[in-house]
Amino acid sequence: MKMETDQTHDPSARSLVESANVAGCDFPIQNLPFGAFSNEAQACPRLCVAIGDCVFDLNAAAELGLLGDEEEIIAAVCGEPCLNSLMGLGSRRWRTLRHILFTLLGERSPHREAAASCLLRQRDVTMVLPVAIGDYTDFYASVHHAANVGALFRPDHPLLPNYKWVPIAYHGRASSIVLSGRAVRRPWGQSKTAPDDAPQYAPCRRLDYELEMGALVGVGNELGEAIPIACAAEHIFGLCLVNDWSARDVQAWEYQPLGPFLSKNFATTLSPWIVTAEALAPFRVAPAPRPAGDPKPLPHLADAQDQQRGAFDIIVEVFLQSAAMRAAGSAPHRISRGNVRDLYWTFAQMLAHHSSNGCNLRPGDLLASGTISGPAATARGCLLELTRGGSEQILLPSGEQRSFLEDGDEVRIRAYCERAGAARIGFGECVGTVTAARN
Amino acid sequence: MKMETDQTHDPSARSLVESANVAGCDFPIQNLPFGAFSNEAQACPRLCVAIGDCVFDLNAAAELGLLGDEEEIIAAVCGEPCLNSLMGLGSRRWRTLRHILFTLLGERSPHREAAASCLLRQRDVTMVLPVAIGDYTDFYASVHHAANVGALFRPDHPLLPNYKWVPIAYHGRASSIVLSGRAVRRPWGQSKTAPDDAPQYAPCRRLDYELEMGALVGVGNELGEAIPIACAAEHIFGLCLVNDWSARDVQAWEYQPLGPFLSKNFATTLSPWIVTAEALAPFRVAPAPRPAGDPKPLPHLADAQDQQRGAFDIIVEVFLQSAAMRAAGSAPHRISRGNVRDLYWTFAQMLAHHSSNGCNLRPGDLLASGTISGPAATARGCLLELTRGGSEQILLPSGEQRSFLEDGDEVRIRAYCERAGAARIGFGECVGTVTAARN
Repeated sequence: MKMETDQTHDPSARSLVESANVAGCDFPIQNLPFGAFSNEAQACPRLCVAIGDCVFDLNAAAELGLLGDEEEIIAAVCGEPCLNSLMGLGSRRWRTLRHILFTLLGERSPHREAAASCLLRQRDVTMVLPVAIGDYTDFYASVHHAANVGALFRPDHPLLPNYKWVPIAYHGRASSIVLSGRAVRRPWGQSKTAPDDAPQYAPCRRLDYELEMGALVGVGNELGEAIPIACAAEHIFGLCLVNDWSARDVQAWEYQPLGPFLSKNFATTLSPWIVTAEALAPFRVAPAPRPAGDPKPLPHLADAQDQQRGAFDIIVEVFLQSAAMRAAGSAPHRISRGNVRDLYWTFAQMLAHHSSNGCNLRPGDLLASGTISGPAATARGCLLELTRGGSEQILLPSGEQRSFLEDGDEVRIRAYCERAGAARIGFGECVGTVTAARN
Repeated sequence: MKMETDQTHDPSARSLVESANVAGCDFPIQNLPFGAFSNEAQACPRLCVAIGDCVFDLNAAAELGLLGDEEEIIAAVCGEPCLNSLMGLGSRRWRTLRHILFTLLGERSPHREAAASCLLRQRDVTMVLPVAIGDYTDFYASVHHAANVGALFRPDHPLLPNYKWVPIAYHGRASSIVLSGRAVRRPWGQSKTAPDDAPQYAPCRRLDYELEMGALVGVGNELGEAIPIACAAEHIFGLCLVNDWSARDVQAWEYQPLGPFLSKNFATTLSPWIVTAEALAPFRVAPAPRPAGDPKPLPHLADAQDQQRGAFDIIVEVFLQSAAMRAAGSAPHRISRGNVRDLYWTFAQMLAHHSSNGCNLRPGDLLASGTISGPAATARGCLLELTRGGSEQILLPSGEQRSFLEDGDEVRIRAYCERAGAARIGFGECVGTVTAARN
């Protein structure tokens, strides 16, 4: 949490890319999120940052010698096909690169023409997964989500006794992580239609999304060592959007006693852009206060700095568009709006907890927050909560109703930071459309 | 399950490596398990097979042109530093390579001197992890284990209703998988000493091992597609030993509602040798019969061939040696003996289940069985079961007692197949010694 704002956060700074200077743009010069793309000319993925409606090709920039020669290693890792090596360099060098890019893409760039030669329109490239994710961990950090879901299964004691002590998490599946835009096939699975029936293997009937934020690990730790809470924030490279698709009928039948498995591992969608911790510095805030009477975190999860500014003030929104809406040209319909600040545990606490037993984290590992829900009914981050276990329906502008997702439904997650006196920092979108189950 | 035995299973076949022909050897010419090694001359890992007390360097053999020229791809993948590419080639080419090696290392090898030049003593090399494991899944396939553990927590209904329908599993941690021989540091973790106490963060007090068998995936499947049960066995490259170290006090406090996490992910130990499905063909048997009244597997998990010979007749043993025993020169003490055949679900069923929702498996993924326990009290695969939740003690030959593992304890898992009329197929050992928690 030692990161302070500097001139790269100056809201009056402008880019040589005009589209980056338009109000409401997700990718102004103060953002510079990392991604990877390919196109017809470049079949092998190349790292880039987003600026306005363009991508800035880091590989090309490195080849032109634009990334500085003080730190050869920075230019070298920018030529790799994924971000893992850059992530492993640590926060000092991430900051150096940020400053280089800020100057290079600024209105008064010292290498205006050369920098411009590394720009491509986003619409002309295909974004690809920018990280080799070794391990994916999914937390359960929203107390509102835990309480809402718990109430459906255990009305008398929705929150289990460990919740306020342990940042609960489980390991997810790395192989089925896909990038925004890829269709998600409705999974098959075992479930029961009535408690006394035999289970059936059939296409999922209660398909859901989960609105999440993911933290990507930068520098990791050795097996057997722990990352102290006071250093934990420095180990986070950046954040991205995550949709943790869920088959609720499969989950209900399979999850005892070892947790969710096939109900989750058929697909997890990531947004293409990783917004750096550095870019988010102006939006670090204190976490929502814990209710009176809640236990204090144990010392290895407690840090004064973290409690002052370990949370992120990021607005997160989910939009649904059915096939009929799309055919009628009807815009995606917003079905929830929440804030990452409402998580009960900070990402620093999640990361410190994860390594507290000596488990080794590696650059590129993904720590997702779990469904982000807020105290308001409009801030529930999945259909299970919004429709109270499928017992209610959401009304779409087309007149259609939804308790769970239908084939053809598109789920679109957006997130952004906005505050007077600071540049807007956007996350872009995390999109997936449900397609029919296989025959 | 289409694999039949052939001349490579002939028990009278002998190797040019004399130590491979000694009765009781784990690695006769009929075995040829895969591993990877490094040594002073070769810092980069090289693939090998075990033969007697030697390793046969596949990289060196490929360079000498010993691996045949009909299939260039086979020689090429043998030059890589891990087995994943070989695993992805599929069972026809695995079989081709097996036959090449069987001839090359046989008593009447056509390239006796050249083959001998690729041999190194096992004692002169350092074995390394031979596979890049993308995802590690841990099953719960022993009904005896599930019932024994369930009885400790839920005496009235030890087995949950889903157990006999669903091959229960959870995702484990890939980063903390280590090779046999590496010390395992006692983890720290949150646990409660009494139900009404606040939890504490302290070194684990109830450290356990779990005796497991792991299946390594060969050819995988595309995301969204499923591997039919009738083909599932063909997707398994081979088996190895797994010790899924467990912090029972941490597990009891953390596991609700999303399953085990920090109680497991601090270390998982693998044996260095992967015994191929092909080598195990003579030891394929019918699974232990399901008790009368148990449901039949649903059609996507049912296969007549699998039920005839989808299980493996493999004896598994666990030995414990305390620091005091080691100091006194006292041999490791056997504390359990079971058989992989006693699993309720076959590996083919586990693999078919895993992909049944469209989850993509990749070459090198690890599917572990979960603790292997049998019906006998002497065949319980972890201390939690052997000591009934720590309420009883195991007596060691040194006079020491154990309910859970102490610092300095070495856990040694061994496994082998033996039957009259067949060559012995051994797995070698999976060893780990507990060291003190960090300060």
